[in-house]
Amino acid sequence: MQKLENLLERIIRRLNLNLRSFDFDAGPYLRECIPLPQLLKFYGFYAVSAHHPIHFHFSNSNLAGSYFLGKCRVENAILYKSDIRGDELKCKGDAFQHRNFKLTLDQDELIWIADSFLIKTLVHNRSHDPENPEIYHIRNSAACHYANIHGAPMEGSFLGAFSTADLTALHGCVLGSYAYVQAGELWHQKIEPGQVWINHYNNFDFKYQFPEAVLERYVQFTAGNPPRGLFMDFIESRKPDFRKVFDVVNLDPSTSVPESSSASRYAVIKPETHIGENVLVAQRAYIENSALGNGTNAQENCFIINSKLAGNNVTAHGAKIINAVLEEKAFVGFNSLVRGAPDTPLAIGRGTVIMPHTIIDVEAPLSIPAGQLVWGYISTPDELATHSLALQDLEKTTSGLNIGRMEFRGSGPRFVASFRNRIEHILEANGAYFDGTGRRGHGQKSQNVSYNIIQAYPFGPRQGIYPTIDIQP
Amino acid sequence: MQKLENLLERIIRRLNLNLRSFDFDAGPYLRECIPLPQLLKFYGFYAVSAHHPIHFHFSNSNLAGSYFLGKCRVENAILYKSDIRGDELKCKGDAFQHRNFKLTLDQDELIWIADSFLIKTLVHNRSHDPENPEIYHIRNSAACHYANIHGAPMEGSFLGAFSTADLTALHGCVLGSYAYVQAGELWHQKIEPGQVWINHYNNFDFKYQFPEAVLERYVQFTAGNPPRGLFMDFIESRKPDFRKVFDVVNLDPSTSVPESSSASRYAVIKPETHIGENVLVAQRAYIENSALGNGTNAQENCFIINSKLAGNNVTAHGAKIINAVLEEKAFVGFNSLVRGAPDTPLAIGRGTVIMPHTIIDVEAPLSIPAGQLVWGYISTPDELATHSLALQDLEKTTSGLNIGRMEFRGSGPRFVASFRNRIEHILEANGAYFDGTGRRGHGQKSQNVSYNIIQAYPFGPRQGIYPTIDIQP
Repeated sequence: MQKLENLLERIIRRLNLNLRSFDFDAGPYLRECIPLPQLLKFYGFYAVSAHHPIHFHFSNSNLAGSYFLGKCRVENAILYKSDIRGDELKCKGDAFQHRNFKLTLDQDELIWIADSFLIKTLVHNRSHDPENPEIYHIRNSAACHYANIHGAPMEGSFLGAFSTADLTALHGCVLGSYAYVQAGELWHQKIEPGQVWINHYNNFDFKYQFPEAVLERYVQFTAGNPPRGLFMDFIESRKPDFRKVFDVVNLDPSTSVPESSSASRYAVIKPETHIGENVLVAQRAYIENSALGNGTNAQENCFIINSKLAGNNVTAHGAKIINAVLEEKAFVGFNSLVRGAPDTPLAIGRGTVIMPHTIIDVEAPLSIPAGQLVWGYISTPDELATHSLALQDLEKTTSGLNIGRMEFRGSGPRFVASFRNRIEHILEANGAYFDGTGRRGHGQKSQNVSYNIIQAYPFGPRQGIYPTIDIQP
Repeated sequence: MQKLENLLERIIRRLNLNLRSFDFDAGPYLRECIPLPQLLKFYGFYAVSAHHPIHFHFSNSNLAGSYFLGKCRVENAILYKSDIRGDELKCKGDAFQHRNFKLTLDQDELIWIADSFLIKTLVHNRSHDPENPEIYHIRNSAACHYANIHGAPMEGSFLGAFSTADLTALHGCVLGSYAYVQAGELWHQKIEPGQVWINHYNNFDFKYQFPEAVLERYVQFTAGNPPRGLFMDFIESRKPDFRKVFDVVNLDPSTSVPESSSASRYAVIKPETHIGENVLVAQRAYIENSALGNGTNAQENCFIINSKLAGNNVTAHGAKIINAVLEEKAFVGFNSLVRGAPDTPLAIGRGTVIMPHTIIDVEAPLSIPAGQLVWGYISTPDELATHSLALQDLEKTTSGLNIGRMEFRGSGPRFVASFRNRIEHILEANGAYFDGTGRRGHGQKSQNVSYNIIQAYPFGPRQGIYPTIDIQP
């Protein structure tokens, strides 16, 4: 395992060098997170699909349990149970606009991960780095359990457990656990644990900070220990179901899936689950005793349990919906928890937006009206008032407002429009609007996929390192 | 599936061109043998091992169900449930001698399969083509069900079902079903079905021809139909056990395997089976209710059922041993059937050599003494006399002898020495003589293997074609 140990130390050294201004040492986080023998137990898998450009190259890496789709390159990296999903990469000839700058891509975009350690991390979308539109680069970086790297190329950055970098290029940044950032570009900045921050240059700024006591209960992540807390406990309790799914090479769906929908054979789908038309259930999604209405999507690492989703619902990467009833187009953002009591399901109204990194965890009956924006932490019905706002009220703000721990500055209408556009884009991209011939999205394009299963050297000095593999059409 | 259909026709065209002097049409054999949808059902798998050079490249091919080990290259080929086992390839720097010619290899040997269709075929050993010592080439060729290509590079050749090309370079040859040839080099020659022929240039010549009626019962293979007969019936009846083995990604052994031995996780091993020290059980071997004594090997496609093998027994590729008791060093050659009655096991004495392509299928008690050479077809005990000879009697012959349908010419001592050397080489290569530190062979080197599982495009014009893959250390 000498080479694998060397690789881990190489990554830590390079990351620490990038973060020297913070005097940050990633070592104690990364060395203890995943015991090295754990990296020998799982296979990597590459999706072979006629709908996506096929080009996969990796060398001197460990890909234990990781999934790859589309044009990817991995070098000197450890990717543990991560999802590298290149189905929204830009194509050769596409125009790319950044403020006033316009570029045309001269090659298909590539996800290129080098000298990095990703743990149970989702990598999706495309590079929003205007300087590198053809390369979605992740280098000299680390991301811990259930981090989301979404349209966020990065170098020399560290993402804590359950953090999300969204549509943001990161250069030498540290994101604390359960921090969410969507800010375009950041240089040498540290985002505190539990900070939710959206900044659109010259347009608006949204900030919320989780109370420390809440974070401690849901996500604790300290140097020298793997993450702990209610999120980890919840996920761990569902692990045995995933084991069964990963043990076999090919697997037929356990439930009926309409022709316009797709459910990954690497998802767990338990009875009694109903899947509607134009639905996407991604790999590593967990669905149990729930109805997914037409046009709904269930992204990687999401859980939907004892719930009804009326239709066109987005369940973003890492979102957990339990004992809830969602009306049409209710949106649940990254790594949010939306949990009602078993006997009184939490009701979420039509078009309501549960912001990324929101925790609604109530034992009492709660009904969230239609058209709301919801953020932060809600544990009792009366906390809703200080953690939500009607979208149409937000649209009236042009300067700013403070509600509870939330601060908003800038243009309300632009914020709301930005969210609405994004939700429409997500539904469109996922194939919610497929009409039988046109407007195909992931729900339709993810059908009929086969997988190449990739394993490491089983012993010797290269133990745990995967042979160099290059896959092309 | 257009590309796959084109590929099949391309192979047939090129093979027929090579065999034009025989006016041979491979089309009716190959088109009907495997319905194309069958080629979409199975994955290929490449062994990742620290003991063997890793280099695997393939393009524009279908590898359904096929296994690969070592340095292999596959282009424009269909390999259906075949075993490409590159664990006896020559290495860079090795000396290669052919009669008076001596060469030193300037690169590691490569198995290179191009424009060929192999069906349930074993490819093993190394190139014995003196003109191409670094490339074990199989091109413009086809091999049908359970053919063995053993140290037999070939171009433009057709191998019928259950035939074996052993240590022979073939150029534009046709081997009939169940034909066995070991003749160094052959050009534009046709070997009749059921012919067993060993020719060592200037040294000896052994020939046996199976009666037509026996062939008809055991192996029938006519244009337009897949092979039929007792061999196929027997193998088909055991298929469901293999399905279970192939369905899961990783599998722990179902029986205890000593540290000095290895049993492929792609073998079927059923109770009550005992595996001794220094044993090799290869992938696609089937063992049931049997004891494999120390130093025994069970090669690809072999079956060992209700039998006891005392030790240092070779069960060559495709050999079937049922209701039999073998003493030390009894050898059973390629595609032989050795079957006693359930209540009176067939006994085979110490050091007895069951020639490749021998059928011993008796209902009555039969005991074959030690030190015999056995060939041909034996269905009753009294047929033994005309199908065997003591090795020490053969050693007394310097000109030749005829026994039953067997003709021998040349030097008996050289024939016996050649067989003895070969059996010793096989035992050595398989690790039968491993002493805890030295003399390692396949039995020890085949432990701790992981597999890359390779799948085809699941639909579209490329359906059934595997993406181009290159694997290196």
